[in-house]
Amino acid sequence: MPTDAQQACFEAGIKFGSLYHQFAGTPVSPASTRSLEVAIAESIENQPYCEDVDVDVHDDRVADAIDHENGYTELTGSLMTVEMRIEHEGVVARTRMEMEDGYPLMKLVEVVE
Amino acid sequence: MPTDAQQACFEAGIKFGSLYHQFAGTPVSPASTRSLEVAIAESIENQPYCEDVDVDVHDDRVADAIDHENGYTELTGSLMTVEMRIEHEGVVARTRMEMEDGYPLMKLVEVVE
Amino acid sequence: MPTDAQQACFEAGIKFGSLYHQFAGTPVSPASTRSLEVAIAESIENQPYCEDVDVDVHDDRVADAIDHENGYTELTGSLMTVEMRIEHEGVVARTRMEMEDGYPLMKLVEVVE
Amino acid sequence: MPTDAQQACFEAGIKFGSLYHQFAGTPVSPASTRSLEVAIAESIENQPYCEDVDVDVHDDRVADAIDHENGYTELTGSLMTVEMRIEHEGVVARTRMEMEDGYPLMKLVEVVE
Repeated sequence: MPTDAQQACFEAGIKFGSLYHQFAGTPVSPASTRSLEVAIAESIENQPYCEDVDVDVHDDRVADAIDHENGYTELTGSLMTVEMRIEHEGVVARTRMEMEDGYPLMKLVEVVE
Repeated sequence: MPTDAQQACFEAGIKFGSLYHQFAGTPVSPASTRSLEVAIAESIENQPYCEDVDVDVHDDRVADAIDHENGYTELTGSLMTVEMRIEHEGVVARTRMEMEDGYPLMKLVEVVE
Repeated sequence: MPTDAQQACFEAGIKFGSLYHQFAGTPVSPASTRSLEVAIAESIENQPYCEDVDVDVHDDRVADAIDHENGYTELTGSLMTVEMRIEHEGVVARTRMEMEDGYPLMKLVEVVE
Repeated sequence: MPTDAQQACFEAGIKFGSLYHQFAGTPVSPASTRSLEVAIAESIENQPYCEDVDVDVHDDRVADAIDHENGYTELTGSLMTVEMRIEHEGVVARTRMEMEDGYPLMKLVEVVE
């Protein structure tokens, strides 16, 4: 029987996978980063046990990724930093996605029972 | 060789397919409809030849679609009305997605050369 | 510092969220259920620590969900059963998505250290 | 009132946008390219007026895109070539996505009335 802490970590992972694969591929430019950040956060916060989502889509990285005349790129993990707080049965799980060694990593930062 | 009008219609279709399949499945509740509308519109307006996108995610339909305790549903075509204006080589194509006979239809409304 | 078991549960959740939000919305009919099952499983098995994915897209539910003349529907959680085995640092996490009370639930079934 | 040819081009565009934004972001490795090709083609062929879809996910490009230890990458337009044939009211539209100047372009190749 999984523990409450294990359940909280499972829920935390679900939110990260959902966020990433729902929104990866979204057309984005420096003009649309703010609205995308808000929509991603508010959307995932709808999911159960998801208390807080903070999304930073980095304007400078988006600008650097636009290498063709169309003026936009597609959202990928390397363009954003995401932090989430999941609460489940009294357990708090904190997670973070950020670049590490050139690759976006989803990390379980802390589990507080 | 396709005409400019046919190219405009092809581009108009691309935007509709993109919008639908990028955002279908997004968790949504009445509390997050406004931010989702803005993010969808600004995202798709990044694409070439896409001059205007107007998205209405209908709060009442979202509320009706929430039938379980979690308090959210997933975005589908039946929950929104979308209008777009595409301009390509002097041709304007207007498109619209709305419910018809209980099914969300993507329609090419008007092509003006 | 999260335990190995908590990390394994976090990874298990990521895979489930990824699977769901990558493939929800895919056009599906009874003629395309087999290829979709294989592609979903092989795709998610590419992800780290994901040892086994088993996907059943239920033909009868797909057929029942097709209520318009076009002859297809869009993949949602209610049309499939999914089982996964994640292994991380010697910990095995087993997960399952299935219908419960009319709603598709992602469950952490077992964690074996 | 749009012509039958314009409608066919609109439908052709919808299929391309759908294909791209449904499957972009899918985890892929050389071991899973074949199943992904089949699932994409059979999925989109479910859509109305879509007579034929041919998808090539290029193994060599997938292998080149895998630059980290995890052994997979995410599907993007630069990794595949797609051809489609749409038929609507006696009009045939042929479309193709391929790399051009380092960027994946969706093209309306031919419209035959």
